[in-house]
Amino acid sequence: MEDNFKYTVLDKINSPGDVKNLDIDELKILCGELRQYIINVLSENPGHLASSLGTVELIVALHYLFNVPDDTLVFDVGHQAYAHKVLTERREQFKQIRKLNGLSGFPKRSESKYDNFGTGHASTSVSASLAMALADKIVGNDKNFHIAVIGDGSMTGGMAFEALNHAGSTSANLLVILNDNGISIDKRVGAMSQYFTNITSSAKYNKVKNQIWNALGGNKDEYNKHRTFFRSILLFFKNLFAGKSNFFEALHIRYFGPIDGHDLSTLISTIEKLKKIQGPKLLHIVTTKGKGLSVAENNPTVYHAPGVFDAKTGEREMKLADTNQPLKFSEVFGKSLVELAEKYGNIVAITPAMLSGSCLNEMNERFPQRTFDVGIAEEHAVTLAAGFATRNIRPFCCVYSSFLQRSFDQIIHDVALQNLAVTFCIDRAGLVGDDGATHHGVFDLAYLNMIPNMIVAAPKDEVEMRNMMYASLFVDRPFALRYPRGNGFITDWKQDFTAIEIGKAEEIYKGNRIAVLFIGTIGKECKDAIDEMANVDNEVGLYNFRFLKPLDEDTLKYIFETYKYIITAEDGVKTGGFGWSVRNFASENGYKNDITVLGIDDRFIEQGTIKQLKEICGIDKDSIKKKIYEKLV
Amino acid sequence: MEDNFKYTVLDKINSPGDVKNLDIDELKILCGELRQYIINVLSENPGHLASSLGTVELIVALHYLFNVPDDTLVFDVGHQAYAHKVLTERREQFKQIRKLNGLSGFPKRSESKYDNFGTGHASTSVSASLAMALADKIVGNDKNFHIAVIGDGSMTGGMAFEALNHAGSTSANLLVILNDNGISIDKRVGAMSQYFTNITSSAKYNKVKNQIWNALGGNKDEYNKHRTFFRSILLFFKNLFAGKSNFFEALHIRYFGPIDGHDLSTLISTIEKLKKIQGPKLLHIVTTKGKGLSVAENNPTVYHAPGVFDAKTGEREMKLADTNQPLKFSEVFGKSLVELAEKYGNIVAITPAMLSGSCLNEMNERFPQRTFDVGIAEEHAVTLAAGFATRNIRPFCCVYSSFLQRSFDQIIHDVALQNLAVTFCIDRAGLVGDDGATHHGVFDLAYLNMIPNMIVAAPKDEVEMRNMMYASLFVDRPFALRYPRGNGFITDWKQDFTAIEIGKAEEIYKGNRIAVLFIGTIGKECKDAIDEMANVDNEVGLYNFRFLKPLDEDTLKYIFETYKYIITAEDGVKTGGFGWSVRNFASENGYKNDITVLGIDDRFIEQGTIKQLKEICGIDKDSIKKKIYEKLV
Repeated sequence: MEDNFKYTVLDKINSPGDVKNLDIDELKILCGELRQYIINVLSENPGHLASSLGTVELIVALHYLFNVPDDTLVFDVGHQAYAHKVLTERREQFKQIRKLNGLSGFPKRSESKYDNFGTGHASTSVSASLAMALADKIVGNDKNFHIAVIGDGSMTGGMAFEALNHAGSTSANLLVILNDNGISIDKRVGAMSQYFTNITSSAKYNKVKNQIWNALGGNKDEYNKHRTFFRSILLFFKNLFAGKSNFFEALHIRYFGPIDGHDLSTLISTIEKLKKIQGPKLLHIVTTKGKGLSVAENNPTVYHAPGVFDAKTGEREMKLADTNQPLKFSEVFGKSLVELAEKYGNIVAITPAMLSGSCLNEMNERFPQRTFDVGIAEEHAVTLAAGFATRNIRPFCCVYSSFLQRSFDQIIHDVALQNLAVTFCIDRAGLVGDDGATHHGVFDLAYLNMIPNMIVAAPKDEVEMRNMMYASLFVDRPFALRYPRGNGFITDWKQDFTAIEIGKAEEIYKGNRIAVLFIGTIGKECKDAIDEMANVDNEVGLYNFRFLKPLDEDTLKYIFETYKYIITAEDGVKTGGFGWSVRNFASENGYKNDITVLGIDDRFIEQGTIKQLKEICGIDKDSIKKKIYEKLV
Repeated sequence: MEDNFKYTVLDKINSPGDVKNLDIDELKILCGELRQYIINVLSENPGHLASSLGTVELIVALHYLFNVPDDTLVFDVGHQAYAHKVLTERREQFKQIRKLNGLSGFPKRSESKYDNFGTGHASTSVSASLAMALADKIVGNDKNFHIAVIGDGSMTGGMAFEALNHAGSTSANLLVILNDNGISIDKRVGAMSQYFTNITSSAKYNKVKNQIWNALGGNKDEYNKHRTFFRSILLFFKNLFAGKSNFFEALHIRYFGPIDGHDLSTLISTIEKLKKIQGPKLLHIVTTKGKGLSVAENNPTVYHAPGVFDAKTGEREMKLADTNQPLKFSEVFGKSLVELAEKYGNIVAITPAMLSGSCLNEMNERFPQRTFDVGIAEEHAVTLAAGFATRNIRPFCCVYSSFLQRSFDQIIHDVALQNLAVTFCIDRAGLVGDDGATHHGVFDLAYLNMIPNMIVAAPKDEVEMRNMMYASLFVDRPFALRYPRGNGFITDWKQDFTAIEIGKAEEIYKGNRIAVLFIGTIGKECKDAIDEMANVDNEVGLYNFRFLKPLDEDTLKYIFETYKYIITAEDGVKTGGFGWSVRNFASENGYKNDITVLGIDDRFIEQGTIKQLKEICGIDKDSIKKKIYEKLV
């Protein structure tokens, strides 16, 4: 990366301790330089831009005031922590953020001693920080401070509330910093959103109060004379601006703020005062997502992760519209859902704060009364879906695969146990690439497989996905449909809906010696592998199972009786998944065929491109080809 | 059941519609008779007594005012809904509550059209009810009312907050009734608990206000004269009693109450008024758990589910202390934890509202600073444990198996991904008996099996459990330990701690033809089965695997090379569990042995005694014996 910017202050920072030696003017320069450095690096190496631009002053203030890692600092979700990474001995490595073997896009304990707690999923920071504070109490250490930085979006997640409720009953030395930028990825939703807006407006109330006071020349007697009158007025303003209630104080968390999160001097002086206040407390700061890059400030959803852009103007590098480029799976999903919603008035869509990511914007525009963004609240999203199903409304409950882990109990207890007709639309299934270990959707096939009453489907391409969506409408049972991040394969995806037969596999190639069985879009790699082995195609059969559950036992019987070698392929964990199901079927039915299972081994997979990660996991085209060759010889 | 009580009003009720025809005096008599009927039935047929005694007036009021199931009624957790069952065409069947083929102990859609939503786990009711309200809006039905009855304990669960946050941003016709009895099973905890106490005291504030008003003869002029003065006093009282903030109003839920939940006239008139108020609203009622049975009122934790008792006095039928009766697994666990906590100062215990159930009372008394009851908050409990582990505190995170499903994502994302040393103590694993489908802990082996870095252990008896607890202290990884509900096998359980070797199976019987492999306490059934087949013991080997993960592959190799037939046994779902792991091992290593997997098939199991359910699932002694015989012949 060519970067001609002069980092006069940042160059002096070798470790976070060096931040403490700066004066306020240097600290302000440091903020500007950090912001510039993040912009320069991310302009070429895409990452989470806007969130990290919003927290620069906060992070500088925290490292100025605290001694991490003895004092502990947990960033909720964590994609806002880039300035923290740069300040904590990772400035050079930062250029390789989210790359294979580079830095993680999120805080990570194994990466740096300065990362007290790894994050990625939302709403965990208060629990973790509270534990660190309580741990220090147990060992009699009362010197350390424990800070959780949590966005207003993450605050809507239930476990943040659970942790606040616990914290409020303790004397733990916990400081929660509510980083309120009015947005998660999309515009934030829910009652609390309105509440934060109200409470922020109460800053205006304080201003009015001061103005009245000043109008009276700061004269106490004069003020007292008109006291009752002014109190009535003030009360009116207070109720108007602030709402009547402080949510956090109700939970026994002392509330401070809101203050401007980009005013470094105020941040430092405020937090310095809070250091002297014992017990759990919350500081509400208001920040601008994308701060310092005007295009990002104006369009924070797009600049949440903008891809490559011009470091000076912020202009995004737009690829020429290529009509031959297939759409993303999510896009085809979103458009297909609108088509179905037009036909079927009882369809609703539910998303936990991923309206854009799940491509539900069009659905929301067309059918606002039938589209529900419930905030970062996966548990609620699923039980809400269950409730809808009891009234003959058909919910398409759209949750990213790794986040749906949050709803495991609700899927079992509220949906499957009652055998309710909910369509789970599980986006970002399989390896997701540069977001890494916290975000790969690799457990879903296995954890859905064990749940009674569930139908578990994974399409080989976007047309099949459409037809599975359609098919789900005609079954009175929970129906899970998982599809990957990234582009599909077919430009001509808009074909008439045809209901796929539930539990029926598809024979793609008929062979006689080796059968390759797959589920999901890994079928593309399998097919390409076989196609490149043109001379052996009579020997190699290819089967698209489509459904992990119910498993097509008739086709399995046929395969086990026809082929000597079986190879299964899936882009999820092997344990409890498709390959294991096939092996179980074989053992249950006394088939002794040789079975090779391709999938993800029992370990966490870090970040990299999806292509790189598939190679590492041995589920890319070449690895599959190699496995077939091994059996052929 | 002999029941000589005269049910003069209850006898007139054939369906809930009949409640509407009663006058207020009859309604009050009905409440008394319902209470008596519940006491009489439960005195002989144990169930959840105290909760259901507390909601009698509420349930009568609701059926008087609403038309269920068109109006919808969801009981959170659901064990407080007995009066509802009796009023909704299930009076006779109620005598078979929690029995095999009898009524479920919880609301259940498949059991009655009057049960709008099945419950069992906490904090789901607001989500479900909100969905029903939103569903009616979609179809243009504005006649129906949607009611969620939720306890103050369930209100601490994060998903209730998620749902309230969503509800507050809608105009859904939702009425949440907060049934505040100050207790979940144990005394409620958390900041919100204090908050509810404060808010309830604010009723006192209203009283003070009225008294002042009355003292002034209700004279408005007189009042106005002293207005400022009185307002100051009132504000003082208000702050004193009520706290400064209303939690629910902050979430845009209109708050009403608190009112006495046993005052039927007030309940009816209040709810009648609320019927006219559009949008989401919450009524706070204060009730007494165990109301009407004084021993239960005085000791609601014991009378949560008291077992058999005398219907008149409430006195519990105590079995004579039998020193030869082994303790419960939970009891041995609790006592062993205290022993370990005495030796190791860095051990802490965490429970989500199951202090008594998990037998942590002694730990709490001995080490109150190291025992954390976090409320009904399983997600928070697990991430709190992760946070502790980062500071070298060793958490024993004690969660019932079926409730730990709530923490699936936190186990993956916060504990296992960071490879943190947390000991999960998973009580109520396997079939739990009369609580039925919502409470069986049958998924844990399978869902933990797929998580990288986890150690998954299940002891054959309580001594082995102690040694696994001890062993967990010496491994720097997450360690899950699951054990069943009910009594152990050994009176002499207090033996010196010996660390069990991680991942090492134990040969109990050496054989040569059939190997029975088990994990957990089902080993007792396996051993008894073999012991009863005395003449064949040379042929049948028995192996206690102890660890599902890491799986003892050396012992497996030996077994596959020594025995022709393999039978595996576990008390969890087959899919993805122990048997599947053994089958996967065999296939992976080319072993062609005949493998029979015993465990729970892919369906939900209802209530019954544990013995009955084991028979149904084919994992009792006789079924195991039969399977062995089948292979012997």
